[in-house]
Amino acid sequence: MKSVNFLLAFVLMASASSLASAYDPNPLQDFCVAINDTKTAIFVNGKFCKDPTLATPDDFTSSGLRIPTDTNNFLGINSTLLSVDQFPGLNTLGITIARVDYAPGGVNPPHIHPLGTELLLVQKGTIYAGFVDSNNTLFSKILYPGDVFVIPLAMNHFQVNIGKTDGVAFASFNSQNPGVVTYANSVFGTNPPIDPYALARAFQLDVNVVKELQAKFISSN
Amino acid sequence: MKSVNFLLAFVLMASASSLASAYDPNPLQDFCVAINDTKTAIFVNGKFCKDPTLATPDDFTSSGLRIPTDTNNFLGINSTLLSVDQFPGLNTLGITIARVDYAPGGVNPPHIHPLGTELLLVQKGTIYAGFVDSNNTLFSKILYPGDVFVIPLAMNHFQVNIGKTDGVAFASFNSQNPGVVTYANSVFGTNPPIDPYALARAFQLDVNVVKELQAKFISSN
Amino acid sequence: MKSVNFLLAFVLMASASSLASAYDPNPLQDFCVAINDTKTAIFVNGKFCKDPTLATPDDFTSSGLRIPTDTNNFLGINSTLLSVDQFPGLNTLGITIARVDYAPGGVNPPHIHPLGTELLLVQKGTIYAGFVDSNNTLFSKILYPGDVFVIPLAMNHFQVNIGKTDGVAFASFNSQNPGVVTYANSVFGTNPPIDPYALARAFQLDVNVVKELQAKFISSN
Amino acid sequence: MKSVNFLLAFVLMASASSLASAYDPNPLQDFCVAINDTKTAIFVNGKFCKDPTLATPDDFTSSGLRIPTDTNNFLGINSTLLSVDQFPGLNTLGITIARVDYAPGGVNPPHIHPLGTELLLVQKGTIYAGFVDSNNTLFSKILYPGDVFVIPLAMNHFQVNIGKTDGVAFASFNSQNPGVVTYANSVFGTNPPIDPYALARAFQLDVNVVKELQAKFISSN
Amino acid sequence: MKSVNFLLAFVLMASASSLASAYDPNPLQDFCVAINDTKTAIFVNGKFCKDPTLATPDDFTSSGLRIPTDTNNFLGINSTLLSVDQFPGLNTLGITIARVDYAPGGVNPPHIHPLGTELLLVQKGTIYAGFVDSNNTLFSKILYPGDVFVIPLAMNHFQVNIGKTDGVAFASFNSQNPGVVTYANSVFGTNPPIDPYALARAFQLDVNVVKELQAKFISSN
Amino acid sequence: MKSVNFLLAFVLMASASSLASAYDPNPLQDFCVAINDTKTAIFVNGKFCKDPTLATPDDFTSSGLRIPTDTNNFLGINSTLLSVDQFPGLNTLGITIARVDYAPGGVNPPHIHPLGTELLLVQKGTIYAGFVDSNNTLFSKILYPGDVFVIPLAMNHFQVNIGKTDGVAFASFNSQNPGVVTYANSVFGTNPPIDPYALARAFQLDVNVVKELQAKFISSN
Repeated sequence: MKSVNFLLAFVLMASASSLASAYDPNPLQDFCVAINDTKTAIFVNGKFCKDPTLATPDDFTSSGLRIPTDTNNFLGINSTLLSVDQFPGLNTLGITIARVDYAPGGVNPPHIHPLGTELLLVQKGTIYAGFVDSNNTLFSKILYPGDVFVIPLAMNHFQVNIGKTDGVAFASFNSQNPGVVTYANSVFGTNPPIDPYALARAFQLDVNVVKELQAKFISSN
Repeated sequence: MKSVNFLLAFVLMASASSLASAYDPNPLQDFCVAINDTKTAIFVNGKFCKDPTLATPDDFTSSGLRIPTDTNNFLGINSTLLSVDQFPGLNTLGITIARVDYAPGGVNPPHIHPLGTELLLVQKGTIYAGFVDSNNTLFSKILYPGDVFVIPLAMNHFQVNIGKTDGVAFASFNSQNPGVVTYANSVFGTNPPIDPYALARAFQLDVNVVKELQAKFISSN
Repeated sequence: MKSVNFLLAFVLMASASSLASAYDPNPLQDFCVAINDTKTAIFVNGKFCKDPTLATPDDFTSSGLRIPTDTNNFLGINSTLLSVDQFPGLNTLGITIARVDYAPGGVNPPHIHPLGTELLLVQKGTIYAGFVDSNNTLFSKILYPGDVFVIPLAMNHFQVNIGKTDGVAFASFNSQNPGVVTYANSVFGTNPPIDPYALARAFQLDVNVVKELQAKFISSN
Repeated sequence: MKSVNFLLAFVLMASASSLASAYDPNPLQDFCVAINDTKTAIFVNGKFCKDPTLATPDDFTSSGLRIPTDTNNFLGINSTLLSVDQFPGLNTLGITIARVDYAPGGVNPPHIHPLGTELLLVQKGTIYAGFVDSNNTLFSKILYPGDVFVIPLAMNHFQVNIGKTDGVAFASFNSQNPGVVTYANSVFGTNPPIDPYALARAFQLDVNVVKELQAKFISSN
Repeated sequence: MKSVNFLLAFVLMASASSLASAYDPNPLQDFCVAINDTKTAIFVNGKFCKDPTLATPDDFTSSGLRIPTDTNNFLGINSTLLSVDQFPGLNTLGITIARVDYAPGGVNPPHIHPLGTELLLVQKGTIYAGFVDSNNTLFSKILYPGDVFVIPLAMNHFQVNIGKTDGVAFASFNSQNPGVVTYANSVFGTNPPIDPYALARAFQLDVNVVKELQAKFISSN
Repeated sequence: MKSVNFLLAFVLMASASSLASAYDPNPLQDFCVAINDTKTAIFVNGKFCKDPTLATPDDFTSSGLRIPTDTNNFLGINSTLLSVDQFPGLNTLGITIARVDYAPGGVNPPHIHPLGTELLLVQKGTIYAGFVDSNNTLFSKILYPGDVFVIPLAMNHFQVNIGKTDGVAFASFNSQNPGVVTYANSVFGTNPPIDPYALARAFQLDVNVVKELQAKFISSN
């Protein structure tokens, strides 16, 4: 019984500072540190908050982007987004950041962030970056270290490392969870698969080509 | 001189009721009817407002969705969105609606609305509708007249008219301009074209297949 | 004990994806399907969410507006709004829809939606629709099938079926719960009743007329 | 002349797509003082801003609520709201205030503020205040000097001065322009009048009673 | 066991109406009264809500600002903000109010409200009020009873009672919890102290002066 | 002619910071590139937009942060924020970025960003960073290259380069114009100066010490 009561009290206190009102244009407290739930496996995607008096400097710091990540895959890139699970202090603050590592020739494929604007800062390498607006106009540019490039909310965008060395960029977002949808996977790699007839007509492809693409992308998911 | 002054006064008055603050969670006036600018060709995409005392019932009414539209095209569908240009009373109200006509077998191809949630109401026909979330899970359903289907903000979605007759649906949005980005066009039909190498790697296609797709979609824009 | 723990885990998981931040201008996840709580009678007005991996296509679909509703009442209308209880996928998406059935001569009486803009689409019949702005100007119009009419946030509005047949309209809202306040009930049908002296002075009516109206509307609630 | 016209066209086109940044949850500047346009009669309802370097302390101060106002009218109350026209510093700040003077027995009749929450602070007198929620439940209370009462967004509310002396209250709002719609006027005092048949059916009144009410309220507007 | 289940049900019901969506620009219900948790000591800073059918008029009323507060301290002022703990009906409504009492010569020291705009209404006394914008321009003014002064979001501001009598003012905010950060305490009174070297360099003070200030303000916290 | 031009300039300047619509939770277009007005001196702080068909890739790219800036000043730091004037594509997108250069021992003094959350990414050096919440609790941490630190909205924060080499960090914000208020300047460096009596009482300093501080900071502005 005791542990149940303890858990209950914990939950209630935890939630206490996290229930926000949509009508106040700002947060209702200084911060609302997400509870680190990696041990319990209960709150996996949760956003419950710590008792604010227990918040520590570590909650507001992350070293998760210090080190290059492995780009040995068919695209030649790797992207690491800090979520509230690794960086609990982000919770309710409306911001996050990702590190992107590029092998030479690596391609960050066409994708959107449905819930946030991106600002890309190149740290290393020569990166060809572009986005496409809703009139299908492509805006693209070659970026060098120190350059920044901004991608409007939910617009299709991509990068290619056109230099001869590895590349590194940092992408900031005006949301704690901007989301990511990769075009190829969202069309050809869904579970269950989209009706191949519909995709064939939409993409002006032979149905068999669509089925091949679906086979590739579904297996790679 | 006189006409200049007149124009100036007009501009100032017109703008008067449209200047809103981002910080107030609600509009700052009852309404702000967009000025119909189809004749002057000056404000083509504009959102200036009428003097509110000159607003009329017609500003808040549209008959633009009464009549079926032509579906004789390679997709077999046609979609008509009411924008503030045709329906000026929508301006600042955070809502709009579209009519979709489907030929038998018509495909509304994978697309997103980057700026709004959609609620689809089927009026006629048998419509297979689906959306894909950011984990690439497909949620799909066969809809009959009177059924509604909701598509979360900026999620990939499509429909197919699987019935033997024409179909009609109405799509409401919680934005006066939800935008639309069709996947095939946003990837293969851009101006200028995206580097075929990047697309080939992203979609696991041969570069020549990519170039063929680009040729088709760029010419069809 | 086990069931308690199970319930606890369920609550925690359920809540996990529903705690939203007011400061991010967009949702923090693709969707947040409300839990169907009609059996437990515990969460009656609740908006807890499903584990997103358990969401199904049915959560995003409703057939609740397919069939005409009974208009045999003193107003000759019936209005059915889809709430998150019947249509759990709506939760956090900022949109919903209602069906309105009208008998010939039916009157949808003066009312407001305190929390959302309405866009009315007529499907059948001849509907006289109007709204009143905060300067007491009436904007009214006769609508035919396919016509749309927009009613700004929280403005007084009404409709009358002036045709000889039944009428049907669909009303979309840019909120998952726009609310509804009918003027006659909000003034004369409250529980407890408003002081008749205040209403008599406000409406320039005899106190006895006010009391009669209160008797009628309180009993009809 | 030519260059003037060119500039004008440029301004209009330039502005056309620029109106609106709803997406930053906060203002984009410290303040944006509205231009005092009482002399030109051009911007009557305008919210253009001053060059911020010309802002003065007076822009952020108002003495408009110092003095009691005349309550010699059929309701026995008088309400003075500070708008950006009298208090230009309010512009874009999402807040304003009103003074309400009550004669003994004065009635602030049932009304809503469609665009803001109200917080009523009684300074003098004995004020009976109430609001009605969307289930038609009345919440009412007798207030004494120093007491505060909160009225949720767009809910029907009223006050009666039940004391023997004049009363004074101050109403704050979380909007620079909360708007006001008085129920009696919005139903019976519109221009043009609402169809008396519709009102008779909605309010369960005889058509002739409706016509009398319309005559009273339309003449009093 | 019973009490556990009871608590659980309570929590679930309580939370039911308080989970808000950030994407709907308005609240999702008429109101969401915070639960008064002073007895349990569990939800101390919480914002769980009552079952709306149990809300009472007292939830929307507060008498907490009726009476002058003690100004016998080193600043000669006292400020009382109504929070949702004392005034539960405020919850989710985006507004609150504070009473400020000033001794003659009392100083409300430089501070900011990080989460809301303030509108100050003087009720008694002669109050010198000012705010500083982000260009370090001071806007200041002497206020008399009935005067109002507006302070933009998060701007540094202060008041001095320059009259010979006690003063009283009421400060409204467009947030239910605007927060308060006093400059002197936030710099010199932190726990743990900020590195004196950094403060000495930032304020162009001798390190020993900084240490003295830290000693004073840390002990006074 | 002259007066026309004068009026025009006036209108343009006046409107510059005031355009925005509140009620749609997202932008109303893909983007809204600010017009580069550095040559005309008319729109100095303006946010008018380009015709979207004239937008170029350069509008969405900036090289303004490539190069170290001069830290030879009394604080030993230099901060460069990209505003819409240098980076016009940012306009309406709700995001921006700054580069901070630190000499060894350089101090970024206590300051707030009133309108945005900051996410600090260290690129070079050893940076001691901290923020203070509204309970005056200090959260501080030593950061190494690749580390990130998040500072909640409008909270007091500072950094010190405690390494032996120059340091570089990049600060992202979830606003296109987060603003900056440095505590020392906002209190002691205002124009006109704040009454020294008030500051002496607020900071528990001798009036003469306050006057010396004012002399230093006002001359350094």
